[in-house]
Amino acid sequence: MGWGTDERAIIKVLGRRNAGQRRKIKETYQQLYNESLIHALQSELSGDFGKAVILWTSDPPERDARLANEALKSWKKGINQVQVIVELACAYSPHHLVAVRQAYCSLFDCSLEEDIISNAALPVRKILVGLVRSYRYDKEVVDSDVAEAEAAMLHEAIEAKQLDHDNVVLILGTRNIFQLKLTFDCYKQNYGNHIDEDVESCGDGLLESVLRVVIWCIDSPEKHFAEVIRASIVGLGTDEDSLTRAIVSRAEIDMVKIRGEYYDVNKTSLEDAVIGDTSGDYKAFLMTLLGATL
Amino acid sequence: MGWGTDERAIIKVLGRRNAGQRRKIKETYQQLYNESLIHALQSELSGDFGKAVILWTSDPPERDARLANEALKSWKKGINQVQVIVELACAYSPHHLVAVRQAYCSLFDCSLEEDIISNAALPVRKILVGLVRSYRYDKEVVDSDVAEAEAAMLHEAIEAKQLDHDNVVLILGTRNIFQLKLTFDCYKQNYGNHIDEDVESCGDGLLESVLRVVIWCIDSPEKHFAEVIRASIVGLGTDEDSLTRAIVSRAEIDMVKIRGEYYDVNKTSLEDAVIGDTSGDYKAFLMTLLGATL
Repeated sequence: MGWGTDERAIIKVLGRRNAGQRRKIKETYQQLYNESLIHALQSELSGDFGKAVILWTSDPPERDARLANEALKSWKKGINQVQVIVELACAYSPHHLVAVRQAYCSLFDCSLEEDIISNAALPVRKILVGLVRSYRYDKEVVDSDVAEAEAAMLHEAIEAKQLDHDNVVLILGTRNIFQLKLTFDCYKQNYGNHIDEDVESCGDGLLESVLRVVIWCIDSPEKHFAEVIRASIVGLGTDEDSLTRAIVSRAEIDMVKIRGEYYDVNKTSLEDAVIGDTSGDYKAFLMTLLGATL
Repeated sequence: MGWGTDERAIIKVLGRRNAGQRRKIKETYQQLYNESLIHALQSELSGDFGKAVILWTSDPPERDARLANEALKSWKKGINQVQVIVELACAYSPHHLVAVRQAYCSLFDCSLEEDIISNAALPVRKILVGLVRSYRYDKEVVDSDVAEAEAAMLHEAIEAKQLDHDNVVLILGTRNIFQLKLTFDCYKQNYGNHIDEDVESCGDGLLESVLRVVIWCIDSPEKHFAEVIRASIVGLGTDEDSLTRAIVSRAEIDMVKIRGEYYDVNKTSLEDAVIGDTSGDYKAFLMTLLGATL
């Protein structure tokens, strides 16, 4: 590349390729130029556009290990960083989560759990460590007796405002996603409210916010990511990192659902919202990932 | 095969091949006879000899997932079953542990953690779930400040006889093996006794036994497996399942160390002990794995 990078070409070539194709492009680039494509992009691109392209071009487990590490390095008492870890643990396949933990160990000098422990304070730490260590069964096998019993355990913990109770951590961190959805349905049927509403009514601290994100990421990740995008756009200024993460990491998973959810909640299209809050190559790249023609 | 299985040939062919070679033999067998070698062995062999050969021929992650499942199905209030799970979590590589969890999900209709939760009672359950979910950093990176601080936390929990304290579970379930060895060294230096001795002096319940096995499996697995073999042999009758598990699963990992440890503790050679307590093809097979000539 060099002087005069052709951003449009990058957007067109990389933005429209799926994960397998991008991997092939990276391999071919390495063979042809004896240089890593990621490094080349890093030296040529900058700003939000550069970050988005590099995340999109990285291998997903490495990408998410880096996102988790960045979140942990800039850990604040806010939900914005914490939810990156929750997403990883609850909104991806068990296989992907394990691959991210392996990538994390390769890239950084310790395990993901160790970095969580040294950055997050109790009680949130306990929830996060319990979640990232999960390897959930990934087929639809559910047991309605378990759902009844565990809905009752969750209800009891919420009533007692003990959101970090051992039972809560074990249930949310070991059961398969289908079982948990059934448990949440049982909860609603037996106790009247959605479980996330009852969690919210426990208080407005970080723990409550984290638990709500956990429940959403398990029950309907599209709801969570539509909310991440909305929150990144509303108000003064844009939270580009969150916007990029949501679009880049979900483009190939559930963007159609997120788009629908976004429209239902905000009565405006996801595309219009992104166009209104971004500009230049960054905007063009996100729109390409969203499937719009340039 | 059929009538007149040649056990000596099986011992010779399979017993002297390493893991990679056994995998090749299995693949070739499948191609030649359009039948799985494991199934063929299952239909022809029986008893302790059959079990040992089949374990030795199985893929290690699948072998250990089956051993864990058997232990959980025949869960008693004794250390014999429980230690199978502890060994998995503490005496193998992080990569192997994850592969076992994946194999467990594929073979049985739930995750390993879920089966532990439904079979083990508190407080042992808490320790086991915390351990099997680990994915430890696997290189030698240690921090002496962490060792000091965490030796103190472990000491405090032991003093208070709270062996299932959250800190104990977090430390033993997330730190890398090298770090934990340093922490145990610090413990000895600062508080006088080996940590396993202090754990034992807390009481003689299952929890204390489990913690002792955890510490041994982390600090010197050869000590633990030498003890498993000794315990399987002493007294009236032999615990063949434990004897087989220890020899089959460690033959390619640390049998030389186990043999040395066995001799140091028992003043008799491991080989003589096995010869004295086993017979026939089973004896011949174990001796082959131990490296003796037939």
